[in-house]
Amino acid sequence: MNASALNTKKEVVCPKWIMPIADALSRVEQTIDSATNSSVYIASQISSYVFAAGGKRIRPCLVLLSAGISGGDLEAEEVIRMAAAVELIHTASLLHDDVIDSAVARRGVHTANAVWGNTISVLGGDFLLSKAFCLLGDIAGNEVISVLSRAAVAMTESELLQSICENDIDLWRSEYWRIIRGKTASLMGACCESGAILARASDVARSALRAYGESLGVAFQITDDLLDIAGDPAITGKQIGSDLANGKFTLPVLLALKRKDFPRELLSKDRIPIEQARRIAEFVVQCGAVAEAKQVAEKIAAQARGALNIFEQSPYKCALEILASSVVAREF
Amino acid sequence: MNASALNTKKEVVCPKWIMPIADALSRVEQTIDSATNSSVYIASQISSYVFAAGGKRIRPCLVLLSAGISGGDLEAEEVIRMAAAVELIHTASLLHDDVIDSAVARRGVHTANAVWGNTISVLGGDFLLSKAFCLLGDIAGNEVISVLSRAAVAMTESELLQSICENDIDLWRSEYWRIIRGKTASLMGACCESGAILARASDVARSALRAYGESLGVAFQITDDLLDIAGDPAITGKQIGSDLANGKFTLPVLLALKRKDFPRELLSKDRIPIEQARRIAEFVVQCGAVAEAKQVAEKIAAQARGALNIFEQSPYKCALEILASSVVAREF
Repeated sequence: MNASALNTKKEVVCPKWIMPIADALSRVEQTIDSATNSSVYIASQISSYVFAAGGKRIRPCLVLLSAGISGGDLEAEEVIRMAAAVELIHTASLLHDDVIDSAVARRGVHTANAVWGNTISVLGGDFLLSKAFCLLGDIAGNEVISVLSRAAVAMTESELLQSICENDIDLWRSEYWRIIRGKTASLMGACCESGAILARASDVARSALRAYGESLGVAFQITDDLLDIAGDPAITGKQIGSDLANGKFTLPVLLALKRKDFPRELLSKDRIPIEQARRIAEFVVQCGAVAEAKQVAEKIAAQARGALNIFEQSPYKCALEILASSVVAREF
Repeated sequence: MNASALNTKKEVVCPKWIMPIADALSRVEQTIDSATNSSVYIASQISSYVFAAGGKRIRPCLVLLSAGISGGDLEAEEVIRMAAAVELIHTASLLHDDVIDSAVARRGVHTANAVWGNTISVLGGDFLLSKAFCLLGDIAGNEVISVLSRAAVAMTESELLQSICENDIDLWRSEYWRIIRGKTASLMGACCESGAILARASDVARSALRAYGESLGVAFQITDDLLDIAGDPAITGKQIGSDLANGKFTLPVLLALKRKDFPRELLSKDRIPIEQARRIAEFVVQCGAVAEAKQVAEKIAAQARGALNIFEQSPYKCALEILASSVVAREF
């Protein structure tokens, strides 16, 4: 497959709430570009490819908005670097996830492993992860390095746990919440906490933002899991039932499994073929489990907004509130 | 394959020069053990497995000895943590290398990917890399984080370059030195430099130790490359010609390629079968290219020793000198 043919730069989605951080976000993009520039051409190439593929840049937004709501300077070099670093860590994990899931498409374009193969993708992920810590190494004060490296550990632990749970409904039932907390909430919590740290926020503000980020992450991940079952493949860029076919039993499926008429004959001890996974997904929608899981996500998003009560009104608070509502309303 | 059956704890090789740092080294082992302990069982299990498989612990020794020769306190918590962190980074890279090379044995035992598969090994590497930065996040002062993260980047860039050069003799000829500097010398240089930084050494001492570590790394890697061609598989735990079979043309082969009677018919545009690689290796030994490459390694090891001239005699200096000699004389 030809990389350059696929590498069409997508516009980063830019809703109105982003306005107060638009300039800072543009500097984050420049920082990502320059940080991932390498004398080894393939390292630059794979980085440009994955970042040009788009992405919502939610994690950098969380760093910037958390610094903003805490009264910090969004344009401070350390805040910009932190915001770039969290996106590098997130993208590194996506590169490795796609290798693990043998995914061929993400965000509507071919995955890096589909273009260059697994070796380059594994090493590309390592490159981005290491570069993230390079960016942070230059930030005065290493509290944020502790926060971020602990999140990176939680992410890999969660992926390991997910891998062990593969295709085992009972394990998924007992570990689902632990998996999504580690997989998504830990990094989003770390983004908010590090924004607060860099803005020299009080301990109370720091804890509140951490709580906001973690709840947002859980709500975000449940929504991701819902979109795998009930999303529009033309918008999500993913096939319906991909998670099931990869041995992942997420909240809507776990809720549907409580129904007596769940089509158990479609389950399998081995991997579920995608066609079968799609039929299970249809049941999960029809039985109301998707709606039920969506309510859970909305409740947790409301908890995230509630964590912001201690802050005075500001464009940053407003943006964080809108963000919490939009992650559960999104279609991709 | 059963992990527990293979997981026989090997004694860490303990030559006499290690005596001045023996206590500190034992604390490094404890730190590695506790740092890699995880509530996710498979994360602890894969870590215990790879560290129990042995290894020379050269990189932690370099941190400790560099701190020692610079007059620092070997037992300081930050020095111990740094020494543990560099071994975590090194081991993370081995886990990913073994996935990339589809290696089944290392240090005479089955590789993690042979036991658990590629997914667990990729994630296990990510776990160790993230844990390394967790250990460093707690060290006051982040200069060492910059030094170490830059080394981690250089390592992945080098692996990417190596992957691009695969099976291409001309590329290997032009990139060999760059590859081995990134692959091995960058981390060994960083180990020595960070030991110096933590001991608050002068800039001159820091540069000298960096130069020592980099030369040691180059000499070490050339020796590794030699052992792939001329080592004893019973001692190295690797098949003769593995590098060639993996598309790597290292110094002894590149030197042999200058001989007119090189058996070019054994080369291939695709991967070279291991039996053919073994026959090439035989020629490389017989034509004297192994001896020639060994001389190059010895000369660079002498340069490493020379870099220590600015230091007064001490058990640490003596150990670093012996280490430089022993890396080129080693059989595994």
